Amino acid sequence: MTDLDDIPALMEQIGRRARAAAQRLATASPADKQAALTAAAGAIEAEVPAILDANARDVAAAEDKGLTPAMLDRLRLDRQRVAAMAAGLRNIAAQADPVGAVLTEWDQPSGLHIQRVRTPLGVIGVIYESRPNVTADAGALCVKAGNAVILRGGSESFHSSRAIHACLIQGLAAAGLPEDAIQLVPVTDRAAVGEMLTMTQHIDVIVPRGGKGLVGRVQADARVPVFAHLEGIVHIYLDAAADPEKALRVVMNAKTRRTGVCGAVECLLIHRDIADTIGQGVIRALIDAGVEVRGDDTLAGIDGVIPAQEDDWGREYLEMIVAARVVDDLDAAIDHIRRYGSSHTEAIVTEDTAAADRFTRELDSAILMVNASTQFADGGEFGMGAEIGIATGKMHARGPVGAEQLTSFKYVVRGEGAVRS
Amino acid sequence: MTDLDDIPALMEQIGRRARAAAQRLATASPADKQAALTAAAGAIEAEVPAILDANARDVAAAEDKGLTPAMLDRLRLDRQRVAAMAAGLRNIAAQADPVGAVLTEWDQPSGLHIQRVRTPLGVIGVIYESRPNVTADAGALCVKAGNAVILRGGSESFHSSRAIHACLIQGLAAAGLPEDAIQLVPVTDRAAVGEMLTMTQHIDVIVPRGGKGLVGRVQADARVPVFAHLEGIVHIYLDAAADPEKALRVVMNAKTRRTGVCGAVECLLIHRDIADTIGQGVIRALIDAGVEVRGDDTLAGIDGVIPAQEDDWGREYLEMIVAARVVDDLDAAIDHIRRYGSSHTEAIVTEDTAAADRFTRELDSAILMVNASTQFADGGEFGMGAEIGIATGKMHARGPVGAEQLTSFKYVVRGEGAVRS
Repeated sequence: MTDLDDIPALMEQIGRRARAAAQRLATASPADKQAALTAAAGAIEAEVPAILDANARDVAAAEDKGLTPAMLDRLRLDRQRVAAMAAGLRNIAAQADPVGAVLTEWDQPSGLHIQRVRTPLGVIGVIYESRPNVTADAGALCVKAGNAVILRGGSESFHSSRAIHACLIQGLAAAGLPEDAIQLVPVTDRAAVGEMLTMTQHIDVIVPRGGKGLVGRVQADARVPVFAHLEGIVHIYLDAAADPEKALRVVMNAKTRRTGVCGAVECLLIHRDIADTIGQGVIRALIDAGVEVRGDDTLAGIDGVIPAQEDDWGREYLEMIVAARVVDDLDAAIDHIRRYGSSHTEAIVTEDTAAADRFTRELDSAILMVNASTQFADGGEFGMGAEIGIATGKMHARGPVGAEQLTSFKYVVRGEGAVRS
Repeated sequence: MTDLDDIPALMEQIGRRARAAAQRLATASPADKQAALTAAAGAIEAEVPAILDANARDVAAAEDKGLTPAMLDRLRLDRQRVAAMAAGLRNIAAQADPVGAVLTEWDQPSGLHIQRVRTPLGVIGVIYESRPNVTADAGALCVKAGNAVILRGGSESFHSSRAIHACLIQGLAAAGLPEDAIQLVPVTDRAAVGEMLTMTQHIDVIVPRGGKGLVGRVQADARVPVFAHLEGIVHIYLDAAADPEKALRVVMNAKTRRTGVCGAVECLLIHRDIADTIGQGVIRALIDAGVEVRGDDTLAGIDGVIPAQEDDWGREYLEMIVAARVVDDLDAAIDHIRRYGSSHTEAIVTEDTAAADRFTRELDSAILMVNASTQFADGGEFGMGAEIGIATGKMHARGPVGAEQLTSFKYVVRGEGAVRS
């Protein structure tokens, strides 16, 4: 048995096993991977009581530690959430297999036929916090893409994650795939994270999923490439040519449907020409719905609006609070977003196609929306089955990270004895 | 004026300028970028004497320093090489503009229409050694993809690179694009490289182009993401079902056409069943052509073959030397390549489609070839106009890195007031 106290040795062993499993996963058939995920879903459904028991232990410990209600909510599982987890696995199983797909192909004058073929990335390290469902989603997406994965969940969800992980392993075993394809780090020691961040020989990419503190630490310390994932400082710009009804509907949904998701809007930018009409109507509706609106000087005159401070711009509330500012025109809106945004998701509400085109062309966030709620920023809503997170960086993956984004490619070149002159 | 001795301040200023230029380049029209590259090609053609003078200074200094003939050859320019540089720029100018291309699009049941649109990466840092033509190629490819670039050439090619850079700047100016889009670090102090590797706020990706020492240092020290670019430990496997004539032609070309390129073959793996026939013929032809063959025990019996040492496996010679080994079967060939390869380029010579399919499926090098010379591992031969290098990593770019690989993407999502339920 491994000595769980010798973290470097433990992680080295996990890394070696993952690398070996990745080699087998890379050539696993689509049917086998599908079978593994379907069997894992069945195991989760069969093990609901065990999973809920494990989760109850985590929740009790978290309550003792005085975690916030929001954190407890993220941690807590019930029958419905466990069923959703199993359904997510079946959904991923049903998606097209990304590995081996010919992305593009062409002939060269030299007689060569060149194909660009999708391949797995290798070994993915996922570092996350309290949501136990990440164990299932991340494990399944990585396997779907032919990768091995090392999961390092938060200490709060330790027992829940172990129970879910046991079901994933059952699925792999049922399909004859190596169990080491999905490993859960069996210790809560933070040194394990440090090892993962520097295991360049065994881990190909790190996906951090969690709050600003976790992501910041990962980005600062990692020697392994990271799929950058910043907070969602989401803006909606109500253009002079906004449709009043769409503006109201989109903003209300983007703020109040769920405030704790990264696609929730945090700042409204309102064109000066409609500030007194559409803008005021939207702000009143927000206040009526219980949202605290922190407005600039122009908007502060509206009943119930609280004056915004400088640090309200560029702030992720994840609560029933929104910042609001009047801008002179589209350029000013773009400037504000460039300065304060986090390149996650922004939306424009307008009937003016030229304005929409400039907004989507000149801004460079991962997701740019026109007349749609920013809460659609989600892998499921993009048709990816599930997501491992929303990447805000520009390297490799961007936006919702589904199975396809967890792949690379290679070139397969065929000739008939062709030589270079 | 900037103090050229205060390297951190100098690099910070270069970084800020690059970031500002990148914002303008990102929305530059295809016609403007094309005009800039065409004008730069014209400037190079007009400035041949100045470029050759500058190069003569570099070559004289390099001779004094006692650089190897191979290094001097990489450094030296003549009329033909300068003309090829200008032709390369025109070639890149004529390519399709990658920015703004819709990579894929689909509708969701929610009513959303989602497009994945190609975008520039931002600011690229290119760190290279003595080849002055990298200044032109890298500068042009980055601009084509809507990026700003910071070029840091080797001290040996300092004057040559400055002269070429001046022509690129003329091109940008002629097209009304910001001159800061292509900056050449004006000092040879190595501290400038250290700054570039950690300027995460101003540089989005580092492309190292050069020998093992440079690339190793960059990969070890960089905080900015790097397009990994290892040496080319290139293998050719002669299968039991190899066509004798193709085997001979492909191997001779792959080894002797040019020995100093990264696509040159360094190790032959020969199936036992054909070792005495095709294998022996190929080895004799190599020896006749002046290639030193370092063979395993089985091959050491052939006249003129030198016994290989353990460190001959996995070695990049870049000379008229090749390692050669007999393997029992395709599996053994794959095992050897997995153990000793650098994931750059490998080829199989066979008439057996199943063997070719297994070779290209089970190996995971950037380029896998069937019945073709490994010297085709080149952006130009892939139809990319030019390349900034051959990436051997799996993150973001892989294989020949042309303008397309210097881009990212974003999602543009259109609705009609769609909200999430």
